[in-house]
Amino acid sequence: MSFYDISVHAFLPILGSLSGLLAKAEAYCEVKKIPPEVLLGARLYPDMLPLSKQIQLACDFSGKSCARLAHSDVPSTPDTEKTFEELRRRLAKTVDDIKTFTPAQFEDAGNRDVTFPIGPDKTLTLKGHQFLTRFALPNFYFHAATAHGILRHNGVEIGKRDFLGVA
Amino acid sequence: MSFYDISVHAFLPILGSLSGLLAKAEAYCEVKKIPPEVLLGARLYPDMLPLSKQIQLACDFSGKSCARLAHSDVPSTPDTEKTFEELRRRLAKTVDDIKTFTPAQFEDAGNRDVTFPIGPDKTLTLKGHQFLTRFALPNFYFHAATAHGILRHNGVEIGKRDFLGVA
Repeated sequence: MSFYDISVHAFLPILGSLSGLLAKAEAYCEVKKIPPEVLLGARLYPDMLPLSKQIQLACDFSGKSCARLAHSDVPSTPDTEKTFEELRRRLAKTVDDIKTFTPAQFEDAGNRDVTFPIGPDKTLTLKGHQFLTRFALPNFYFHAATAHGILRHNGVEIGKRDFLGVA
Repeated sequence: MSFYDISVHAFLPILGSLSGLLAKAEAYCEVKKIPPEVLLGARLYPDMLPLSKQIQLACDFSGKSCARLAHSDVPSTPDTEKTFEELRRRLAKTVDDIKTFTPAQFEDAGNRDVTFPIGPDKTLTLKGHQFLTRFALPNFYFHAATAHGILRHNGVEIGKRDFLGVA
């Protein structure tokens, strides 16, 4: 058991699940004659972020977090996706990016300092294991589960097993 | 950095946050003259679980998972809570239970087998680190974030910072 196992392998299955959720959501739009942009723009409350942004943030809190833990370059990811297909490509690219990291790059990642932005002009430094448990994982799962909640609330026939990737 | 740090310390802050979310939800009910049982019974969709059950499950997927990882007795937790106060006590008890575990009990927990029920008559055996990343963490965060989503959808003035415990 390595730090790689419990960081990289926490993110990958859920990123795959999100792609599956989007496929079901797109099929639902076709059957129900719902314009895709309606569901992609759906929110649980007017001042919450829409579905598309929840997916983009789940990508960032996994892909960028792995880069920070590996002390590698953090990729720039402009949020340009406007369709289900584009969001699935973003998820697939995030998976591919994460898979480029090797266990060796995570060898001492849990004990190394990670400095990361927590606002426009502010950074925070935590040990890698604290960065993972207090920042990366809760943010990642928050946006992933909120994406599931938005789709569920809008009637897409999915459940927790789809989220966990065991459906 | 130990396996204890990335399992026990993943659960504890969010359990504390959920207690804070419930306090804000209870205050919201008072101000808006909403019977507490209405919000405790709120769901994002008719066939989803209500708020109270999301909290109970977040307790189980953290407390029981820690017991399984430590190869300790798994506590029995009948879901009897009917009020915000009772749910906060359940969360506090879960925190107390988790805090009784020592880093020594988690020493080799990531590499040990964990056998756990995945249905009425079915069990699954995974290595501790796989149990954590594929089962315990995603289930735990799923129910915690869904509780946040239910409250947010019902107008309680909370946000991700309350979920992360940095508000």
